[in-house]
Amino acid sequence: MSNESLPHVVIVGGGFAGLAAARSLARAPVRITLVDRRNHHLFQPLLYQVATAALNPGDIAYPIRSILRRQRNARTILAEATGIDLARRIVQLADGELAYDHLVLAAGARHGYFGHDDWERDAPGLKTIEDALEIRRRVLLAFEAAERRGDAAEHDATLTFVIVGAGPTGIELAGALLEIGRHTVARDFRSFDPRRLRVVLVEGAPRVLPPYSERLSAAAQRQLEALGVEVRTGVQVTKIDASGVWLGDEHLPARTVLWAAGVSASPLGATLGIPLDRAGRVRVGPDLALPEHPEVFVVGDLAAIEQDGRPVPGIAPAAIQAGRCAGHNVAARIAGRPTRPFRYVDKGSLATIGRAAAVGTIGRFEVTGFLAWWIWWLIHIAYLIGFRNRLSVLIGWAWQYFAFARGARLITGRVWTPANAPRDAQPPDSA
Amino acid sequence: MSNESLPHVVIVGGGFAGLAAARSLARAPVRITLVDRRNHHLFQPLLYQVATAALNPGDIAYPIRSILRRQRNARTILAEATGIDLARRIVQLADGELAYDHLVLAAGARHGYFGHDDWERDAPGLKTIEDALEIRRRVLLAFEAAERRGDAAEHDATLTFVIVGAGPTGIELAGALLEIGRHTVARDFRSFDPRRLRVVLVEGAPRVLPPYSERLSAAAQRQLEALGVEVRTGVQVTKIDASGVWLGDEHLPARTVLWAAGVSASPLGATLGIPLDRAGRVRVGPDLALPEHPEVFVVGDLAAIEQDGRPVPGIAPAAIQAGRCAGHNVAARIAGRPTRPFRYVDKGSLATIGRAAAVGTIGRFEVTGFLAWWIWWLIHIAYLIGFRNRLSVLIGWAWQYFAFARGARLITGRVWTPANAPRDAQPPDSA
Repeated sequence: MSNESLPHVVIVGGGFAGLAAARSLARAPVRITLVDRRNHHLFQPLLYQVATAALNPGDIAYPIRSILRRQRNARTILAEATGIDLARRIVQLADGELAYDHLVLAAGARHGYFGHDDWERDAPGLKTIEDALEIRRRVLLAFEAAERRGDAAEHDATLTFVIVGAGPTGIELAGALLEIGRHTVARDFRSFDPRRLRVVLVEGAPRVLPPYSERLSAAAQRQLEALGVEVRTGVQVTKIDASGVWLGDEHLPARTVLWAAGVSASPLGATLGIPLDRAGRVRVGPDLALPEHPEVFVVGDLAAIEQDGRPVPGIAPAAIQAGRCAGHNVAARIAGRPTRPFRYVDKGSLATIGRAAAVGTIGRFEVTGFLAWWIWWLIHIAYLIGFRNRLSVLIGWAWQYFAFARGARLITGRVWTPANAPRDAQPPDSA
Repeated sequence: MSNESLPHVVIVGGGFAGLAAARSLARAPVRITLVDRRNHHLFQPLLYQVATAALNPGDIAYPIRSILRRQRNARTILAEATGIDLARRIVQLADGELAYDHLVLAAGARHGYFGHDDWERDAPGLKTIEDALEIRRRVLLAFEAAERRGDAAEHDATLTFVIVGAGPTGIELAGALLEIGRHTVARDFRSFDPRRLRVVLVEGAPRVLPPYSERLSAAAQRQLEALGVEVRTGVQVTKIDASGVWLGDEHLPARTVLWAAGVSASPLGATLGIPLDRAGRVRVGPDLALPEHPEVFVVGDLAAIEQDGRPVPGIAPAAIQAGRCAGHNVAARIAGRPTRPFRYVDKGSLATIGRAAAVGTIGRFEVTGFLAWWIWWLIHIAYLIGFRNRLSVLIGWAWQYFAFARGARLITGRVWTPANAPRDAQPPDSA
């Protein structure tokens, strides 16, 4: 590589935070190596659309090296970072190592089960493409199982879907699941009525969307219930298994349980050898650097950042802002200038409810209903346009989505075998 | 179910032949149950586009029950057929059974390795969505491995792709692979030049596209070589392992080997207890029924159908025609009319070579070059339009394709681990 005398900036993670950091250094006198164990950047806010078979994986994921193609000072490598050696300034990879002068750790988070990791098998979460495809598979198989059972399925666990966690992900999943049964597959089945599906949203806090205002929480719950979602707040899940969930002593039978209730930070944080918070996140200084290692910055879901006494939320805009700040601070250190403290600017956030409603804030305004939904889409499309720089792709994508295209409704993966057979399936009519 | 007195027609397989049979019976006084172990119909001619990351799986696969949604006399169930009991007229499923009055067996074929099933691990074939995604994964990982090796990769096996079998699938894969290196990813990598990839097409017969005329074979070979594919005809593969392929005593090192050389019929044929041909296909009478069981029809890749001394090819138009004929004959038997013999009408066939050329026949005319390529696309689009009845989906799809969209270039599945690390990868620059 040329310019080997330039400082080497290693960025671990090609999500929102890592990519923002890389792009903010586009004109800095550095060599950048961005490392990710996946080859694609994932637009996570739309992951629930893949999980509910409305979009294809390829619609919301994009190769990282394509995104950085034009940035001459950046290269991308596909590798898994397994540890950080702060003393030697080395990122350990599964098959090698990278020495750095500056490091931006943006390895993100996985879903967390509050210590009950065995729940993962019966209640998949939604953080990666593979998660989304697994959820999609289970949802579609539930309908296939119901077709084998006939209308008895309308009264038992086959068509009951439980979503644990009523944050934005949970309510978006809930609304989208209802829409599948009501619209997308409504006339595809003969022996039962898909509109009789039951979606139950369970939340431990007293209200849905706990980080939002009480007014917005109430609006969200109203809209969810108008759509047909059963909302249960103030209940904790005490157990999950193949039969469903337990809420204290109450057993809620459900064939399909989805997890949207907790995240835990990437295990890379633990390899730093410094104290972490309860969710495994790394505590950083005001400028996002480690207090003892000013050349190391931590951003995104892996970082525990507090502002005005409250944690900065683990959402895309916060990750992007932090990534940009870290990039700016790397350049500042190299130029001998002081770093600047990170200040998260809450421009608002929206959560959709089904295909025609949303709740959220824009700046200081609260918005609900159909208008909010349109704004949500426009914001996401604008991000994707600026991001991919390819209007044509988005036209095709939006076209497919708004035309209620069904191409995304594939069950891929394991072939049907007795081990995979739907639970409680009765043999089909043999007369 | 209502109308239980109507004859029950069971169709095993929702591919081209099975679906054509079902649809041809739309107005017949029957009850139809279509069984498939996958929920989607796959447009196989475009599978190589998924394998070479030009299209998404959802673009070429469509839920079978959606296709048959409006056909009131047909229902679809997701199940795996494990055997046929001709005496009792029962289709055994992994989790049940189906009694039939008439049976249409359209279970298709898998790729076959001429008895060397161990070759499958190092040389995946291309018959299902999962096959295409696995091939896509290996192709993209080869480029990622080359990025780690640097320009040494241009001279070794990392960028060598061998395709075994120069039928339409093989040459389409070869052309598409060249295009990936030349255009799609050409500027995505820093440490090597993707245009230096090497694609070798190996064929045992004396010429490529053996079923085509000599003139068309020659045109195809010229166009392949003009594109940059190395064509080796008249050579047999004697061994395949992780290092590449052996052609007799010659060792051809290659990181990625793809299999497009043989098919073997579905194992369902063997459960009939009647003699099969060498590829495991079922011999049928002139009207596509089993000689001893006139209520059972076999169509598509599972059937061995001869016409004028030559086998009817295993291509989509032949499968569709046979499916329609079988459906017609089922209705004829029910009405007490004589069945009609199957007559395959060769309307032509085309194989594409890269993004701008093709060879093939239309009716009695031979066509080559760019015009042939356009005709190929128009025919496929027309089929899909009539098929999906949703012009909007196709507009989106065609838009995405022609705009060289890169969204399909995902490596999904297993996360990067030392076990998955690219072969021969060197540690990245650590200076």
